[in-house]
Amino acid sequence: MLREQVRIELGERSYPIIIGPQLLSDAALLDAHVAARDLLIVTNETVAPLYLDTLTKSLRNRRVGTLVLRDGEQYKTLESFGTILDALIEGRFNRDAAVVALGGGVIGDMAGFAAASYQRGIDYIQVPTTLLAQVDSSVGGKTAVNHPKAKNMIGAFHQPRAVLADIATLASLPKREFSAGLAEVVKYGLIHDVEFLAWLERNVSALNARDPAAVAFAVRRSCEIKAAIVGADEREQGLRAILNLGHTFGHAIETATGYTEWLHGEAVAAGMVAAADLSHRLGWVSREDLQRTIDLLRRFDLPVAPPRIGADRARQLMGMDKKVLKGQLRLVLLKRLGAADIVSDYPEPALAATLESHFG
Amino acid sequence: MLREQVRIELGERSYPIIIGPQLLSDAALLDAHVAARDLLIVTNETVAPLYLDTLTKSLRNRRVGTLVLRDGEQYKTLESFGTILDALIEGRFNRDAAVVALGGGVIGDMAGFAAASYQRGIDYIQVPTTLLAQVDSSVGGKTAVNHPKAKNMIGAFHQPRAVLADIATLASLPKREFSAGLAEVVKYGLIHDVEFLAWLERNVSALNARDPAAVAFAVRRSCEIKAAIVGADEREQGLRAILNLGHTFGHAIETATGYTEWLHGEAVAAGMVAAADLSHRLGWVSREDLQRTIDLLRRFDLPVAPPRIGADRARQLMGMDKKVLKGQLRLVLLKRLGAADIVSDYPEPALAATLESHFG
Repeated sequence: MLREQVRIELGERSYPIIIGPQLLSDAALLDAHVAARDLLIVTNETVAPLYLDTLTKSLRNRRVGTLVLRDGEQYKTLESFGTILDALIEGRFNRDAAVVALGGGVIGDMAGFAAASYQRGIDYIQVPTTLLAQVDSSVGGKTAVNHPKAKNMIGAFHQPRAVLADIATLASLPKREFSAGLAEVVKYGLIHDVEFLAWLERNVSALNARDPAAVAFAVRRSCEIKAAIVGADEREQGLRAILNLGHTFGHAIETATGYTEWLHGEAVAAGMVAAADLSHRLGWVSREDLQRTIDLLRRFDLPVAPPRIGADRARQLMGMDKKVLKGQLRLVLLKRLGAADIVSDYPEPALAATLESHFG
Repeated sequence: MLREQVRIELGERSYPIIIGPQLLSDAALLDAHVAARDLLIVTNETVAPLYLDTLTKSLRNRRVGTLVLRDGEQYKTLESFGTILDALIEGRFNRDAAVVALGGGVIGDMAGFAAASYQRGIDYIQVPTTLLAQVDSSVGGKTAVNHPKAKNMIGAFHQPRAVLADIATLASLPKREFSAGLAEVVKYGLIHDVEFLAWLERNVSALNARDPAAVAFAVRRSCEIKAAIVGADEREQGLRAILNLGHTFGHAIETATGYTEWLHGEAVAAGMVAAADLSHRLGWVSREDLQRTIDLLRRFDLPVAPPRIGADRARQLMGMDKKVLKGQLRLVLLKRLGAADIVSDYPEPALAATLESHFG
């Protein structure tokens, strides 16, 4: 299979996303995209046994340190961030060293924030091994750790030097995690490309079977859409916020359940349904298109309703979200399938009705 | 006395430094330079009783939270950074809030790093209350906390929106801290402006007496020189490193003594003498000019020799410094009084001789 390449255009911070199978064992590819001679690979206890040896062997003529963290969103903390910095300092890594993030979004976000902060910023390379990370978190330079009271509250914008998305690594992904990644893929269709949404509907079976050609196309198209949006608004001053479709509702779910019961993509799926529901109440999305959204997510085995934590609790947890501007809760809503907007002047009773019907 | 203004030119990140007496009680000035309506003032237990009330009263029509940290370089840690973030989250500060750093360099560096990281970056305003912070650390956007094994290893480049240097606050500064600030003032003369160095020599008595006109000029000229250097090299790719004259030797002193015995400026003073000594051994600085440097620092009651920690230990601690590039120890040296350069091709025996004579 041919390799695909998508380029994130950000001036001197531009970088390539390479998509294809067997990238980790391709020493020539790594030589081409990893400039630093001193590397710290940050990974976790689940990913390390699967891919760490392969990657390390492919990194020729380099000094390679490794740090294996525990696996899980609950370890995406300032404490783990400190552990990565300890490893950089104890390994005497200099400013010209780079961090390689081998794993899912949690590893990528933490390792990226550590690279952003170590000596006020060194290079890092994303090697995402989950579908979610390949289509979303590894691309765009958002790095962060969680605060006990709110997700991704502490971080930096710091672009990687390259993203190497080896789709062969998705074979080892648990079914539930693969589905969670598909939630973000569906998101790209919903916010930007109704044709891609239709392609997804036609390829549900191939994607659920992880057919390599289908997966490679879905990853590439997702990255292309994200690249276009991030290229237009690197620091989330405006447009980029549409990438958060379903995330404000989703964060409420994740926070209420302590980041452990729901996978991020699952919370986003249920959150997107809530956002589509509110968009429907505002007359922007038809009942049929709302149902179409629900059906597609269901066919990917994703949850389409949040836990019944109560409308008041949901509202409170949404209020703590970063996307609150000047006390006014801004939400990403759908103007139609394939087009999103950031809205703060929706009628309050419509939000109340959505919260009541979804969280109540 | 008239107020002086120096502007840091960094495109959309440009900002003013206002220098003068009684800025903290000037509500109109604060209105003009503090745009945010929600503010968290971060200060410490020493500064708070002196200036927190004055500043808070001058911030009209705003929601103002305060966080009072313990005083000292030993609290410039990831833990204190976390405490500031806790206060931002518990105070439900949004992206349009700003952090106000009221205090010396430790407060400014920590509060700045917290502002850089909170929600991936919110505004901050520097209100430096020490001479060191007014002439150096509050200007230029370097933020950081210390790692137990190395100073300023964890941080970000994040420019403030404004720097308000109220020179009236220097009246309360202990003599030793005031002198430590003068070390950085001398540094600007040494690296960039021999005329300013001569002005300092003529005004030793006025400065030691904290004559307001003399202090205001020294702060302004220091900020002008720093502004020119930072404007040319915001992220320390090259030129900006000359601001670190004496700092590599100085960091070795501070690390060896656990950041507690020596003030930063004191370590820099002794470090600058070591750098001038090496510059002299390389034939760039005459014996008379080396002595002139030592004499000026002495007249400001600054130490001119490091503790006898041994040449090997000093070398080891310098090796951990950020300014090491590709394993080669780069040093800021003087080509002559008023001109510095970043040098890595000095003869090793000359460095050995300087280390032996200063640390041995």
